[in-house]
Amino acid sequence: MCRWLAYSGSPIPLEELLVKRDRSLIDQSLHARQGATTTNGDGFGVGWYGDAETPWLYRSTHPAWNDRNLRELAAGISSRLFFAHIRASTGTAIQQTNTHPFRHGRWLWMHNGLIRGFPRLRRELLLAVDDSLFESIEGTTDSEAMFHLALTFGLESDPVAAVERTVGFVEETGRRQGIEHPVQMTVATTDGRTVWAFRYSSEGDSRSLYFSTRMDTLKALHPESTELAQLSDETRVVVSEPLGDLPGAWNEVPESHVGIVQPGADELRPFAPR
Amino acid sequence: MCRWLAYSGSPIPLEELLVKRDRSLIDQSLHARQGATTTNGDGFGVGWYGDAETPWLYRSTHPAWNDRNLRELAAGISSRLFFAHIRASTGTAIQQTNTHPFRHGRWLWMHNGLIRGFPRLRRELLLAVDDSLFESIEGTTDSEAMFHLALTFGLESDPVAAVERTVGFVEETGRRQGIEHPVQMTVATTDGRTVWAFRYSSEGDSRSLYFSTRMDTLKALHPESTELAQLSDETRVVVSEPLGDLPGAWNEVPESHVGIVQPGADELRPFAPR
Amino acid sequence: MCRWLAYSGSPIPLEELLVKRDRSLIDQSLHARQGATTTNGDGFGVGWYGDAETPWLYRSTHPAWNDRNLRELAAGISSRLFFAHIRASTGTAIQQTNTHPFRHGRWLWMHNGLIRGFPRLRRELLLAVDDSLFESIEGTTDSEAMFHLALTFGLESDPVAAVERTVGFVEETGRRQGIEHPVQMTVATTDGRTVWAFRYSSEGDSRSLYFSTRMDTLKALHPESTELAQLSDETRVVVSEPLGDLPGAWNEVPESHVGIVQPGADELRPFAPR
Amino acid sequence: MCRWLAYSGSPIPLEELLVKRDRSLIDQSLHARQGATTTNGDGFGVGWYGDAETPWLYRSTHPAWNDRNLRELAAGISSRLFFAHIRASTGTAIQQTNTHPFRHGRWLWMHNGLIRGFPRLRRELLLAVDDSLFESIEGTTDSEAMFHLALTFGLESDPVAAVERTVGFVEETGRRQGIEHPVQMTVATTDGRTVWAFRYSSEGDSRSLYFSTRMDTLKALHPESTELAQLSDETRVVVSEPLGDLPGAWNEVPESHVGIVQPGADELRPFAPR
Repeated sequence: MCRWLAYSGSPIPLEELLVKRDRSLIDQSLHARQGATTTNGDGFGVGWYGDAETPWLYRSTHPAWNDRNLRELAAGISSRLFFAHIRASTGTAIQQTNTHPFRHGRWLWMHNGLIRGFPRLRRELLLAVDDSLFESIEGTTDSEAMFHLALTFGLESDPVAAVERTVGFVEETGRRQGIEHPVQMTVATTDGRTVWAFRYSSEGDSRSLYFSTRMDTLKALHPESTELAQLSDETRVVVSEPLGDLPGAWNEVPESHVGIVQPGADELRPFAPR
Repeated sequence: MCRWLAYSGSPIPLEELLVKRDRSLIDQSLHARQGATTTNGDGFGVGWYGDAETPWLYRSTHPAWNDRNLRELAAGISSRLFFAHIRASTGTAIQQTNTHPFRHGRWLWMHNGLIRGFPRLRRELLLAVDDSLFESIEGTTDSEAMFHLALTFGLESDPVAAVERTVGFVEETGRRQGIEHPVQMTVATTDGRTVWAFRYSSEGDSRSLYFSTRMDTLKALHPESTELAQLSDETRVVVSEPLGDLPGAWNEVPESHVGIVQPGADELRPFAPR
Repeated sequence: MCRWLAYSGSPIPLEELLVKRDRSLIDQSLHARQGATTTNGDGFGVGWYGDAETPWLYRSTHPAWNDRNLRELAAGISSRLFFAHIRASTGTAIQQTNTHPFRHGRWLWMHNGLIRGFPRLRRELLLAVDDSLFESIEGTTDSEAMFHLALTFGLESDPVAAVERTVGFVEETGRRQGIEHPVQMTVATTDGRTVWAFRYSSEGDSRSLYFSTRMDTLKALHPESTELAQLSDETRVVVSEPLGDLPGAWNEVPESHVGIVQPGADELRPFAPR
Repeated sequence: MCRWLAYSGSPIPLEELLVKRDRSLIDQSLHARQGATTTNGDGFGVGWYGDAETPWLYRSTHPAWNDRNLRELAAGISSRLFFAHIRASTGTAIQQTNTHPFRHGRWLWMHNGLIRGFPRLRRELLLAVDDSLFESIEGTTDSEAMFHLALTFGLESDPVAAVERTVGFVEETGRRQGIEHPVQMTVATTDGRTVWAFRYSSEGDSRSLYFSTRMDTLKALHPESTELAQLSDETRVVVSEPLGDLPGAWNEVPESHVGIVQPGADELRPFAPR
């Protein structure tokens, strides 16, 4: 089981969420909590937006907790939108090209979960990837294949529909091969402005996904926090598991829903594979 | 908290103890058991004796559980005497030169535990290392420093006395600096023939250490086991935590003792710092 | 430009050819010779046969010249048949799954050269790989794709014909896409008994390939060499560039030929894509 | 032989000097020029100043030319003062703690060259390091030892005098042990404001060191360059070997001199060990 977080809002040093607080993402990677039985030591990745349209990546095959470069970068780099992902391999090789987030142009993608029976389905799924996208597949994970299917199905113009078609296609392909519940996922994707976060599984029993509470509400709840006071009202964090211990800070995304973090009011919509 | 095992006896592929069985050393590294709160993902090492007097080393900074080369070597290499160690850093850098076992000539050394206050004591301890040995110190761990102190104090001629002097010296140095309980250790060392395994801590509350039961007894207990039948009566395994689930297989080494695995009858002796 | 060697004959420690002599394979990787303009520092791999039918692999993304584990293994492991390969990437990622030799069952495969225009051809070439073999493709290189095409075309039953069909298929696919000279290769493959070594390029200007002289001839030339005296008359080495400086030791394989090292008389045959 | 560069001036993306231009630092690492016989593939490091007083580090044991994270960071990070170093080991282990630049508080240090006979001198040199600095020595190189000696001898208050005393001390220690020419070095150090660059060797035949020409002169020479036009007049680059091919861009630092890049007029002074 992987762990991830997506941050959008006032620029902060990455270390604020990755390293510093109790139950930070890196702390989570070291200490299994919430019933996860294995550690997340199979590499990690960070993707962040700076001045350019295209995000930058730092991805490593070492455990996040003992990577010194990660600590340096997390302290030295501030960003208004970043993704971080900590990997527990479900079987594919431990290599940089298999670590999340994946990037295509100005898009990022990361995934917690798996496509069941992926070794058997891989060929058929890859065949459905658009010819022009095929050569940018560099690794061997189910997650990267899903990303390229979503791009094929129009991620850049209508992200929710594209992911719905992707999941529908994977489920159909899987079921044809006798796999009962092909998809288990929480997925985050972004174009550098809006963040889409999906929670879905074929069996209706998806891994956890949380949105931070609206900043104005949170500030009202914790007027003493100078840290919160510095964050814009539009600041949001989406995580696979809650960070820190701030009461009232986290709201679970319901089954089969997609949350959309965007300028103006955020949205929560039902998600249904097509 | 690190984990280690020492094997001496009939030649077997390393994978028998490192990979294959339930609760193998690598399995232990991934799943925390016996109350250990963190994982052992900060590198590992294997030292084995082949045809030459000098043992060979394979040491890596990746987690043992996802290192493919380790699995290949563990399957491809058989040995009559090998050490394996899985590291959880107590603060020093994750680098090959800090992974156990350490080697000097035909000797190997590995350690679970720590010297408390080592950053403060390091200089003084290193100063006590014999000049001719100093340049072979390549890393920065307390464990490697102890090894070189033991070599300085005569490990190659009288191992038990040398380790007693080493521990005595570290305790004296530490206490002079106000450290109440300077030493916590289980240590294994070998010259390629005999294995010495020490259990000691200044506070008299040492980490666990187990010897496998005598093979003849174990075979009598489990006459059905074809695996045990293939092992010579002198075969022994020493481990920081029991491997597998064979009833009657493991005996705890008492506090402040050293066990000696050697041709002929093995020995268990009290251990006291000098 | 990669470099490789294949050894078959009396069991020797790998280090004899990889490390020890002047102009050993590792020495070649560090010092560019014979007009190669870049270094071979993009990883390396060794595959060797031991007691089992299946060979073992050690593959790393570090430069061969500074990998300590490689030196240990090369000293500690002896083998009667081994492949070694030092990589200079032609663009694909530096990762273990992209390092040679590749393995399938008891077969090994390694390659120096490239498929020109591979990013464009990749999808079509992968589609031709047999469904049952597809899931064992773990990396993204042209070399691994060729290996799986060769397996698809019958490598395990008729290696020369299978490689001829593979090259023919790659050339046809490439030319359809407007690539004038799609294939540049020296390839070695083995089933653990026989070694096939191919030299071919679409443009008829292939990278170098050398066979060692028959041992009986070489011993007669150098009666003073105790090292040669220990090797069986059937011992052969195939290399991309000559090792060492022994006069009379190396014979260039002609363009468009395949050499076959086998029990009994070795063979040299013309090679023509089908 | 290592290679390094120090940049001070208008903030630029690191990639401008590390990656982009012909004969960039990374290009130099791959292609041996100027008679260097080996490649620089034994790791690299970058230290840069951002908003904080303390610089950040990214250091890796992989070759710079194939490290994807380095390319991302070099594109994503801009800095007004940065050091970059590419290592060719003179014998010590390839590990992060042995890669330059080294950091202490707000200071950086990097070195090209060696202390001859260092394995023999190491103990005595380390003994002279101030007790409070000793525990921050993490690696095993001569370069890091020199840095800690310089800190001991007052680097933070009078850098030139401290380095003169360091070199004097190393020479005296070396000569007592029968080493004729103990020191060979070009060294750069900075406190985040001023850069000191030293060229010295005991034999008076030091490795090369170049300062970029004053920007106003360079702009006058190349009025067509929009790239130069963007750089402040105080911008300077110090390098072990010239980058790029701009005529008139580089001036060799004379033997036994130290160049000082600072606000206002830069300085060039004779350097003499004490």
